Amino acid sequence: MWLQREIRLAPRERGFHLVTEEVLGALPELSELRVGLLHLLIRHTSASLALNEDASAEVRRDFEAWFNRAVPEGAPYWTHTLEGDDDMPAHIKAALLGPSLTLPIGEGLLALGTWQGIYLCEHRDRGGPRSLVATISGEP
Amino acid sequence: MWLQREIRLAPRERGFHLVTEEVLGALPELSELRVGLLHLLIRHTSASLALNEDASAEVRRDFEAWFNRAVPEGAPYWTHTLEGDDDMPAHIKAALLGPSLTLPIGEGLLALGTWQGIYLCEHRDRGGPRSLVATISGEP
Amino acid sequence: MWLQREIRLAPRERGFHLVTEEVLGALPELSELRVGLLHLLIRHTSASLALNEDASAEVRRDFEAWFNRAVPEGAPYWTHTLEGDDDMPAHIKAALLGPSLTLPIGEGLLALGTWQGIYLCEHRDRGGPRSLVATISGEP
Repeated sequence: MWLQREIRLAPRERGFHLVTEEVLGALPELSELRVGLLHLLIRHTSASLALNEDASAEVRRDFEAWFNRAVPEGAPYWTHTLEGDDDMPAHIKAALLGPSLTLPIGEGLLALGTWQGIYLCEHRDRGGPRSLVATISGEP
Repeated sequence: MWLQREIRLAPRERGFHLVTEEVLGALPELSELRVGLLHLLIRHTSASLALNEDASAEVRRDFEAWFNRAVPEGAPYWTHTLEGDDDMPAHIKAALLGPSLTLPIGEGLLALGTWQGIYLCEHRDRGGPRSLVATISGEP
Repeated sequence: MWLQREIRLAPRERGFHLVTEEVLGALPELSELRVGLLHLLIRHTSASLALNEDASAEVRRDFEAWFNRAVPEGAPYWTHTLEGDDDMPAHIKAALLGPSLTLPIGEGLLALGTWQGIYLCEHRDRGGPRSLVATISGEP
């Protein structure tokens, strides 16, 4: 069984945001699979997807703090500056975290750990809505 | 053909550890596939999986050294500190390296490069046993 | 439908290089799939794959600049130095960016965003030719 669908995520401010419910709500067919994989690709180069702690808003705020220090705006080595100070750091952050997630499906549910949730990592000041391609394969 | 199984990894001390044999030993059915993919997800947010050099223990030690400098404990910008100094850096390291690997299967073997091995990256001081979900799909 | 093939990439100098066309040119069967996934693994531990902005050579140059600062050669904490100053940083960079990409296929094409292209990230001074394993699964 194969299924592919675009998911449009509402715009978020710069930072790390939990979108597990928003993503799963768009994929009701997932519940029909005994075993399978869900693949998500974000179709942008300045936002990314991650899987991490879903209980504490502090954790997501600390992600933003660390990434802003590790990939600073206004550094003298940036040459691609035309699209704003937040643009080139956003590309680096997006590559570090990656544009996609592949997640196991078991008995109709995502087989994640207790504390794992899907993050939309918005690295631009005004990224706007973000588009995902979700691809599901598996066995009913 | 689809197969899904939990793999429990023995506890390791903080650092980078080769687990290729431990993982493959739990998946004997892999040898029956002519072509396919093995997906591994670690069901935790403070440990991760990576694929890197499997010959030298120095390399794995240098991974630990670099990550400890890049994501320092006790930095003034951490707000999520309740679970210990090693907790928040562990979440960042886990996200940088990622929670999953997808690896090709060819003629009953992982089709890896000569020097590639699977790392369990344990970012906590006392992480305990770690659980993986292994999902195999492919053609016999 | 399953297909697996080795792709040999021509040697590149150290840095970030667009290889989308070179990869797709080796996979003409991709056009026959209505829906599916393309998985690429680079079979090396000092080069990596990424998906990022494909329009500006400045972006790729800035990637090289940032990674060289974030993972410096000659740092006092490296112990694995036998294979050259560029070797151990190359392993770290490769793990940060990752050895593989999984990309959705829709209606015979990669379902990427407008500005997304496949990067070969060559982290060695003289990496030589690099080998990928491409695995395609999907529905005609």
